[in-house]
Amino acid sequence: MNPSRALAYARAHRHRFVAELKTFLRFPSVSSQPERAQDVRKCASWLARHLQSIGLDQVRLIPTRGNPIVYASWLRAPDRPTLIVYGHYDVVPAEPLREWSTPPFTPTLKTGNLHARGAADDKGQLFCHVKAIESYLQTNRSLPANVKCIFEGEEEIGSTNLTAFIARNKRALRADAAIISDTRMLAPDRPAISYAQRGGLRAELKMTGPPHELHSGNFGGAVLNPLQALCEIIARLHDSQGKVAIPGFYDNVRRWSKTERSFMARSGPSDEAILRDAQVQRGWGESGFSLYERTTIRPALTLNGITGGHQGRGSKSIIPARAIAKLSFRLVPDQDPKKITQLFRDHIARITPAGVRSSVRIFSPIEPALVNRNHPALKAATFAYKMGFGSLPVFIRSGGSIPVVNTFQKILDCPAVLMGFGLPDDHIHGPNEKFHLPNFYKAVATSIWYLAAASKLRSSKPASQESAWRTT
Amino acid sequence: MNPSRALAYARAHRHRFVAELKTFLRFPSVSSQPERAQDVRKCASWLARHLQSIGLDQVRLIPTRGNPIVYASWLRAPDRPTLIVYGHYDVVPAEPLREWSTPPFTPTLKTGNLHARGAADDKGQLFCHVKAIESYLQTNRSLPANVKCIFEGEEEIGSTNLTAFIARNKRALRADAAIISDTRMLAPDRPAISYAQRGGLRAELKMTGPPHELHSGNFGGAVLNPLQALCEIIARLHDSQGKVAIPGFYDNVRRWSKTERSFMARSGPSDEAILRDAQVQRGWGESGFSLYERTTIRPALTLNGITGGHQGRGSKSIIPARAIAKLSFRLVPDQDPKKITQLFRDHIARITPAGVRSSVRIFSPIEPALVNRNHPALKAATFAYKMGFGSLPVFIRSGGSIPVVNTFQKILDCPAVLMGFGLPDDHIHGPNEKFHLPNFYKAVATSIWYLAAASKLRSSKPASQESAWRTT
Repeated sequence: MNPSRALAYARAHRHRFVAELKTFLRFPSVSSQPERAQDVRKCASWLARHLQSIGLDQVRLIPTRGNPIVYASWLRAPDRPTLIVYGHYDVVPAEPLREWSTPPFTPTLKTGNLHARGAADDKGQLFCHVKAIESYLQTNRSLPANVKCIFEGEEEIGSTNLTAFIARNKRALRADAAIISDTRMLAPDRPAISYAQRGGLRAELKMTGPPHELHSGNFGGAVLNPLQALCEIIARLHDSQGKVAIPGFYDNVRRWSKTERSFMARSGPSDEAILRDAQVQRGWGESGFSLYERTTIRPALTLNGITGGHQGRGSKSIIPARAIAKLSFRLVPDQDPKKITQLFRDHIARITPAGVRSSVRIFSPIEPALVNRNHPALKAATFAYKMGFGSLPVFIRSGGSIPVVNTFQKILDCPAVLMGFGLPDDHIHGPNEKFHLPNFYKAVATSIWYLAAASKLRSSKPASQESAWRTT
Repeated sequence: MNPSRALAYARAHRHRFVAELKTFLRFPSVSSQPERAQDVRKCASWLARHLQSIGLDQVRLIPTRGNPIVYASWLRAPDRPTLIVYGHYDVVPAEPLREWSTPPFTPTLKTGNLHARGAADDKGQLFCHVKAIESYLQTNRSLPANVKCIFEGEEEIGSTNLTAFIARNKRALRADAAIISDTRMLAPDRPAISYAQRGGLRAELKMTGPPHELHSGNFGGAVLNPLQALCEIIARLHDSQGKVAIPGFYDNVRRWSKTERSFMARSGPSDEAILRDAQVQRGWGESGFSLYERTTIRPALTLNGITGGHQGRGSKSIIPARAIAKLSFRLVPDQDPKKITQLFRDHIARITPAGVRSSVRIFSPIEPALVNRNHPALKAATFAYKMGFGSLPVFIRSGGSIPVVNTFQKILDCPAVLMGFGLPDDHIHGPNEKFHLPNFYKAVATSIWYLAAASKLRSSKPASQESAWRTT
């Protein structure tokens, strides 16, 4: 199937595409905030209606224990291969709101960028594929390959329910490749395919001291302060060289060959590029590794936030009663989230001083993932980028974690094609997140080319029509 | 002047006194929160009207750069001594509100205690003297001694404007003693006079890293986290023995004689009593000193709160852009707040790691204070407690700081009589602050007896009638 009509359609309708994306971005679909549950559901419903309107079949809002999965398919070419198109319609919180130049859920165009929470992560990237599919269906009344769209609402909280759903519906979800656009390129003219993802763990560490706040005049110097104890514990999670100081933490970290490390040095971003993206003057962390390596083949432990004691304006002379730290681990092959959980719990118990109590809660374990970069599904992606962006992509590792990559590979035995359309300065998860519109247009074209190229993949598994989903 | 009529009046009107105190406590007069400025002013106006209604003269709301000083006097006995009655009508913030069993600004009676923010610190204690004065004026039409009431609205933020006001109005404020009830007794049947106060300093330490929050997947392990750096710096402010680790910090700390320390051991609370008051199992801090000593003759540095990174519900995988810690020092003779400020600034600058920037703001320096416990004005207080509470008071040191003690002693050359009516478990500055009503009634009687006893003090300074206040 010649993609030229689809490409022409996409070009002609690009302004409408942006307008629709803005509607999609207006939903504050923050999955980690229970008070946003209704907004998440409204966003899912809108997306489902939109998939219906562009001509997809079997559009369904599939209930889970958490947020619904938006599913749609086009399976009318039984002899051709089948692609899963994955994305997530949930976003991280927009706070701190005062740091946004424009309101996070009022999408705003500024100098070629669309600013909004979720613009790049992941509503904007997901939407590229939706618009590519529309471009075929509205011009050819068919797609070059079968497609199963799976758009979840819990990526930012660990994809637990999606993983369970996929495990229960392996047969109905059979596919030859899974395309995921939730990563980034190196620069506007340097597309990239991610072939590795760090895994992760989230932890909440709570320290409890006196039953009430105490007056620091009356008791300061005589009662251990749980917030101070928390700081002292946090300080003992890294050594002075920037390495994680939890005993056993590095035991299973894979050592990579010289060949792989030189490949990384050639293809990945330089230290300078990473510092520029972060807008900082100097790097930090484990010596003996480039910044690119530190953020991809080396694990990390990041303190995401602390709540404790008086935080408002003014001052209050107290010894706080408790304090909480939120932390996230990034894990690499062959670290096991379960084992790391245990090492962390043991370490905290060991270093908690007498006089305060500590407790640890663990969320969202994600195993690290690797993709075979020689798979034909990835070669098709190389071709598509060349056609859509005019440049061949580089293969890079990502520092982040997309829980479902492992799920697709391990449960569905289906390679994950991580075609990123974001840019390093998109400020994902931070204030003023944006999506670069020229990337949006080229990404729609790239997806159109990918669907064309994927039609030539070997179809090992006939596309099965879904019957009843197993949701519990 | 025989106090019996005043005492009978106070007994007869005690329920109305409590009702009036409840009205006083309803004002959320939080001096450290700019959004409460109107409430602070309304509280001051109410107090001034109240002083007028009980028969005091010269009632004035004296403007300052901050909150007004409520002043009133009775100076109709030129041959008798003059007392300053000091108190503060401002309070610390009530947050965290969810930890209060009853709303902090809805005074509530429960099992003999009046619960509200400010119940003990200091509206309730201040009110004891107001009601004693009323009891005389309504029964004798005169007072046994001249009185100058000075009730300020900025004690909890350092009394800077009051100090300046006193310095500018030394002549008009001349007095033979200053009575201050803003401290506590050891137990309901163990009254106490405070003869020492720790000084203090408040500090805000801010760490700044990347200009925006960064995604901890993309940058975790490669960029120094300002919140983590803050924790590491906090951890380096104390050594493993609980001593403050700022070089030079203890240089000027006075060593007390064996005699004084044995006096303290006999008169002050035991370790067990302090732990019981704090509701904790074990003490902490400098070895070689009792908990009473650690909180009175030894300095302390307390971390009051930290704000940094993601603090709401849910999780957010970020490297924060900045973090702030609020700290308070308690200082002892002969530490100089100015010198400690410099030592702290130097230490922070020295231990701030490359890759983040630190800044320090210092507020509310207060010098430590000592009172001569043999002064006749304190002997009068001993007598008054014996009459009001039925027991002789002990002389104790306080861990807190009342900025004005030094001001009265140094600028007005007037001994401070720190007659506490609070209890150790009053939860001042914390949630569920209360004032024990039997103490309130006995304190009114004690104040009535004190005014009677003070009439016999030597009057070195004729009471001067105020003319125009110098307010700037």
